[in-house]
Amino acid sequence: MTTYAVVGTPVTREDGPEKVSGKTCYAGDLRLPGMLWGKVLRSPFPHARIVRIDTSGALQLPGVHAVLTGHDVAGRLVGRTLRDVPLLAQEKVRFVGEKVAAVAADDVDTAAEALTRIEVEYAELPAVFDPVEAMQPGAPVVHDGAPAYEGPAGLVHPHGNISHQTTWAGSDVEQGFRESDLLFEHTFTTPWVHQGYMEPYACMVAIDEAGRIQVWANNKQPFRLRWQLASALGLPEDRIRVHPCAIGGDFGGKAGAMDVPLAYALAQRTGRPVKMMMDYVEELMAGNPRHPAVITIKSGVKHDGRLWARHTRVVYNGGAYGGFRGALTLSGGRQAGGGPYRIPHFRIETYMMYTNTVPCGSYRAPGEPQAVFAVESHTDMIARAMGIDPYAFRLQNVVQEGDVSGTGQVFRHVRGAETLRRAAEAANWEAPKPRPYCGRGIALGQRPQGRAVSMARVTVDAQGRVTLGSSVPDTGVGFYSVGRQVVAEDLGLAAQDVGMIRLDTDAVLFETGAGAGTSVGAAHAALGAAQDVRRQLTHLAAECYVWPQERIVFRHGRVFVDDAPERGVAFHELAARAVAALGHPVVGEMTTTAEEPEVTAYCAQVAEVEVDPDTGQVTVHRLVTAHDVGTIINPLDHQGQIDGAVMQGLGYALMEGLHADEGRITTLSLGEAKIPTMQDIPALVTVLVESPGGEGPYQGKAIGENPISPVAPAIANAVYDAVGVRIQDLPITAEKVRFASHP
Amino acid sequence: MTTYAVVGTPVTREDGPEKVSGKTCYAGDLRLPGMLWGKVLRSPFPHARIVRIDTSGALQLPGVHAVLTGHDVAGRLVGRTLRDVPLLAQEKVRFVGEKVAAVAADDVDTAAEALTRIEVEYAELPAVFDPVEAMQPGAPVVHDGAPAYEGPAGLVHPHGNISHQTTWAGSDVEQGFRESDLLFEHTFTTPWVHQGYMEPYACMVAIDEAGRIQVWANNKQPFRLRWQLASALGLPEDRIRVHPCAIGGDFGGKAGAMDVPLAYALAQRTGRPVKMMMDYVEELMAGNPRHPAVITIKSGVKHDGRLWARHTRVVYNGGAYGGFRGALTLSGGRQAGGGPYRIPHFRIETYMMYTNTVPCGSYRAPGEPQAVFAVESHTDMIARAMGIDPYAFRLQNVVQEGDVSGTGQVFRHVRGAETLRRAAEAANWEAPKPRPYCGRGIALGQRPQGRAVSMARVTVDAQGRVTLGSSVPDTGVGFYSVGRQVVAEDLGLAAQDVGMIRLDTDAVLFETGAGAGTSVGAAHAALGAAQDVRRQLTHLAAECYVWPQERIVFRHGRVFVDDAPERGVAFHELAARAVAALGHPVVGEMTTTAEEPEVTAYCAQVAEVEVDPDTGQVTVHRLVTAHDVGTIINPLDHQGQIDGAVMQGLGYALMEGLHADEGRITTLSLGEAKIPTMQDIPALVTVLVESPGGEGPYQGKAIGENPISPVAPAIANAVYDAVGVRIQDLPITAEKVRFASHP
Repeated sequence: MTTYAVVGTPVTREDGPEKVSGKTCYAGDLRLPGMLWGKVLRSPFPHARIVRIDTSGALQLPGVHAVLTGHDVAGRLVGRTLRDVPLLAQEKVRFVGEKVAAVAADDVDTAAEALTRIEVEYAELPAVFDPVEAMQPGAPVVHDGAPAYEGPAGLVHPHGNISHQTTWAGSDVEQGFRESDLLFEHTFTTPWVHQGYMEPYACMVAIDEAGRIQVWANNKQPFRLRWQLASALGLPEDRIRVHPCAIGGDFGGKAGAMDVPLAYALAQRTGRPVKMMMDYVEELMAGNPRHPAVITIKSGVKHDGRLWARHTRVVYNGGAYGGFRGALTLSGGRQAGGGPYRIPHFRIETYMMYTNTVPCGSYRAPGEPQAVFAVESHTDMIARAMGIDPYAFRLQNVVQEGDVSGTGQVFRHVRGAETLRRAAEAANWEAPKPRPYCGRGIALGQRPQGRAVSMARVTVDAQGRVTLGSSVPDTGVGFYSVGRQVVAEDLGLAAQDVGMIRLDTDAVLFETGAGAGTSVGAAHAALGAAQDVRRQLTHLAAECYVWPQERIVFRHGRVFVDDAPERGVAFHELAARAVAALGHPVVGEMTTTAEEPEVTAYCAQVAEVEVDPDTGQVTVHRLVTAHDVGTIINPLDHQGQIDGAVMQGLGYALMEGLHADEGRITTLSLGEAKIPTMQDIPALVTVLVESPGGEGPYQGKAIGENPISPVAPAIANAVYDAVGVRIQDLPITAEKVRFASHP
Repeated sequence: MTTYAVVGTPVTREDGPEKVSGKTCYAGDLRLPGMLWGKVLRSPFPHARIVRIDTSGALQLPGVHAVLTGHDVAGRLVGRTLRDVPLLAQEKVRFVGEKVAAVAADDVDTAAEALTRIEVEYAELPAVFDPVEAMQPGAPVVHDGAPAYEGPAGLVHPHGNISHQTTWAGSDVEQGFRESDLLFEHTFTTPWVHQGYMEPYACMVAIDEAGRIQVWANNKQPFRLRWQLASALGLPEDRIRVHPCAIGGDFGGKAGAMDVPLAYALAQRTGRPVKMMMDYVEELMAGNPRHPAVITIKSGVKHDGRLWARHTRVVYNGGAYGGFRGALTLSGGRQAGGGPYRIPHFRIETYMMYTNTVPCGSYRAPGEPQAVFAVESHTDMIARAMGIDPYAFRLQNVVQEGDVSGTGQVFRHVRGAETLRRAAEAANWEAPKPRPYCGRGIALGQRPQGRAVSMARVTVDAQGRVTLGSSVPDTGVGFYSVGRQVVAEDLGLAAQDVGMIRLDTDAVLFETGAGAGTSVGAAHAALGAAQDVRRQLTHLAAECYVWPQERIVFRHGRVFVDDAPERGVAFHELAARAVAALGHPVVGEMTTTAEEPEVTAYCAQVAEVEVDPDTGQVTVHRLVTAHDVGTIINPLDHQGQIDGAVMQGLGYALMEGLHADEGRITTLSLGEAKIPTMQDIPALVTVLVESPGGEGPYQGKAIGENPISPVAPAIANAVYDAVGVRIQDLPITAEKVRFASHP
């Protein structure tokens, strides 16, 4: 492989020191002169008509500046894609925690006190909580009266409680079943999971003297937030300026507009800046957790072990509103079809259901941990039932280079089999198990590698100092380090020679924000901007020094002709000349376009567990992750992404989840949400299967999402291997294992 | 001439309503949490060594957070072009008002109190105040020890008290004098004049958690300010973000760094945001007023009235530092040569002198009101002495189309004679005078039309709403209106359909800021950005509707093929399609490059005065301004620029000026500075000599600076015409006229 000077070397976080020293100013730390605090009153009922609201008691409280109800914000709907979330409940509430009224007061305590003085009379309505029940005829309808919501391609009309439905099919699945020798059908269920970020949603909105709306928010997609506001409020997008703030944990969840439109409404009413911050009870009852799912998979298999046909029905519980999702459905639904396997005949139906529960949003690889848990448990169950080794069964069916999918897509740069093999080798798959009640489980996941619109700017000033500017928030994935590295690599500098500044939505024309593969898209733009600078400097150097343009290289902080390094100039010297010639700093820019995925990256995991036969408690001793990777830009961040994803997968597998009682979330502290602690983490082994074809700069591949998904099925499969108990409902708690083994 | 839909129609100010209603937030209105107030202690001596500073008393005052002296900011020099201004005096002070120490305190009163507790011991040094005296051998040297200051092309070494000297010559002037029949030599002097803006210099500096320096300032050149700070502090430019603030009057004067670097030093020391605002005493004693000048002109003339040779020496009093000027010298100096006249042999020497007086800066047409007063008085004196009508004398000598200057420049689009004629006609030049003691005076000025680097962005969102973004502050010249008009014109919309947002230095790559001909350069960029948008929309329309691309027009809010308006689409409809296709708003951008002047615009004025024979009081009855203009974009602003410039010229002619006593400014209130009031304004007549060739969009020409300069000589010449008294020293006060007529 090519040797790089900076790419591939460990670089510590630009934003690390300020974070660990407590200096970082988060959205919740912001203050503005004259600022008020906003708080909201939330519904105690899952489904009810609002009969009457009396705000007079709250308005009389000294220090209260405004009280808003649904009437004040009528007709305003907000959403990331589907615009169906009212700023405040309109006539009826649809989940426990829905916003009913909002207060702006001098301080947070006065605002909280004011909420207690708002009287609301409700008339309860029949409610529906389970997404499969919501599909039945006669079920209570969450959005009745055939509402029309604005979606990506015009109006979206929910069909009963079905918010959205997609079918993805290749060939004739019924014919496939007829041709199969064996049929298997299983159903799997998964719970709500909160992303578990430490920092709750927070924002500040101020309307400046020119009437511009200044927004500070811990939102990972500043431009999408701007659009959400503009479309909800009927304002030109350029009237709104979003200042991205440091983000104290995202994991996908920090993309909703959340309180921002209400903070605007309160700021507009009071003429004062308004700050709003959710507390953790609000985060857990009305954040935007991962969707629960009910997934039924029916597969047809040939006697020789070839998967031949599959019909999958994925029912996601979307909750009361769809405005927190990035799309009408979840991309993960598709993975519940063949997954990484060749299946000639398939049909996947995905249902996104409205229910009277908390609206769900995005969480690392949206929809995939659910789907991969189902597919990879199901795969194991087939192999076990047929007496085939689950690893061998997967190797037999995994997609190979050049295979054509049922929808005509040709698979390229396919590393599924190799990744599986490397995981099995590292886990010593064939070795005898050390003790009774110990087991091994394997699972395979895959993820297409796309690229979003991104923009970056690289500036070189008269002293030769290089700065990378981007409005993509670093949600923790380490983009700031990766960005600096690719710029440094291109310009022949050290990573620490490149500064980083965070730009706002005035400063770049458009970019998608943080999301899947941030470092791929955003770092591509950073590299392009650096190349733009290098092109300009090369041109100048060729002119000034009469050097052959195509042989000028940038290396070790110097610029020279490839065969005469001794006659070159320092980078800062050339920069000074360039700035003098231009009359201003040298600026390079790059906007990348969105690209459909061409390459798929694979991740195979093997879990080694031990089950306590008395309590059912599952202990994971070792978790091997083999990942099909491209060029690794920053090994520190890269490993951090893998380890973090594996830990979140572990929590999903064994302990995490929000409990609910009649649609009311009862898990109201992070402690009860049971996020894994360091004590819960087993030995983690990473195997890097390096291969070309990455879509990132220097052929890097996105790493952040893939390793979360196979963890739960690998553990579920290992538990079966250890004690013969099959858990089809996450998490795999001791109670469930104990009950299943001795009912 | 071409007919336009929006260009040429009166458009009121976008920023007008917020200004007149008191809503505008100026830099002085800004507050930030934890903000401190900075104040400075100033030197009471024009030239002295600092023997000792004791800050302990100030530091002990409760509420004082920092006290800085020169020692704390040693080596840091700042300037717009020449970097010679220390943040605080280094070892010695060079003018009354120089900053010696700075304090940051909880409030402005505590800061002021703290200043009184700083003890400074000075040892006075001999000082020099007059720029001509400063040239003499043996004069006190202001910057001794051959200092080296950073200038535009490397280090600048003052030569004695000469900060900078330029010579501009064509042909052999001594030979020209020998060939002449008559020789004339006169000397003229002009005073300091403060720009008289209502809002003093103010700024706020905060260092954010990422170490970026956030600057709010009423500075008209945000990028230049960023550079000033970066170069003074040795920081990368991108580490600094300048937020342009509304500007409450500029007239050229709001370009200095002033207190910004010091506010940074105090913010760095205290870790808190620091605000600094000058009071009006400080503005008048230590602002950056117009340079006083001593101008000597010697001309050789042929018997037939042809100007044949000229030698001019312009001595500008630059004060103690040069860092407030936009260049090493003043461009106006060159105009003291031929002015608008053909003179085969000439030599102009311009001296920029250091003296122990207030450093001077920029004021509307820097250097020109001084030069034009001298040249046009001198021209009149020659004509009178030769018995030639001054108007006829000017017509005979004025530059004609195709003439070649002494330096080889070919004059194009020359409207000097026509402008003169139109002014004389409107003023009824040949008519007998109405009464004794009445007189008429004529004067001619001219100004090259250049263009600076400017950048603009035009955004169209999904609702078809158009926004123009620019970081060029509208200092009052009406650029925001003109910008919106040129964008609207190009896109076939109404001016009110185009919104305007003010961007900061993160948001654009570079632009020069406000200055001469703002509306020309910045509006060019705005037009270019609109054209970029139109090009994208045209391309899409051609594709979508299968229309011939080159025949698509944008008019009356619609887009259609030129011969089929009925089959077109609404602008917002096409915009919605474009945004949907792109996935984000349509964005057009344009960066204009700097262009050397090719066209010169002329301005001729005729003043009609009456002189009170007892008191010498001059009353101007009527002032005719004929101006060679291009396409007028916004008649309201255009006329406002002419009237405003004429009024400032009137103040310069008759009443304004800062008095000084041994270098100490004694005019310490705006009332005493005697800015004209509405009572002082005569009947103003404007004659627009429309002609093509303007360098602005739609062939517009810059208007803001030209009409200020000929006012004073027109009045001086009219006073001579009325009572035979020649005043060569501005302003033309009653005392001077009375004394000259009855000494």
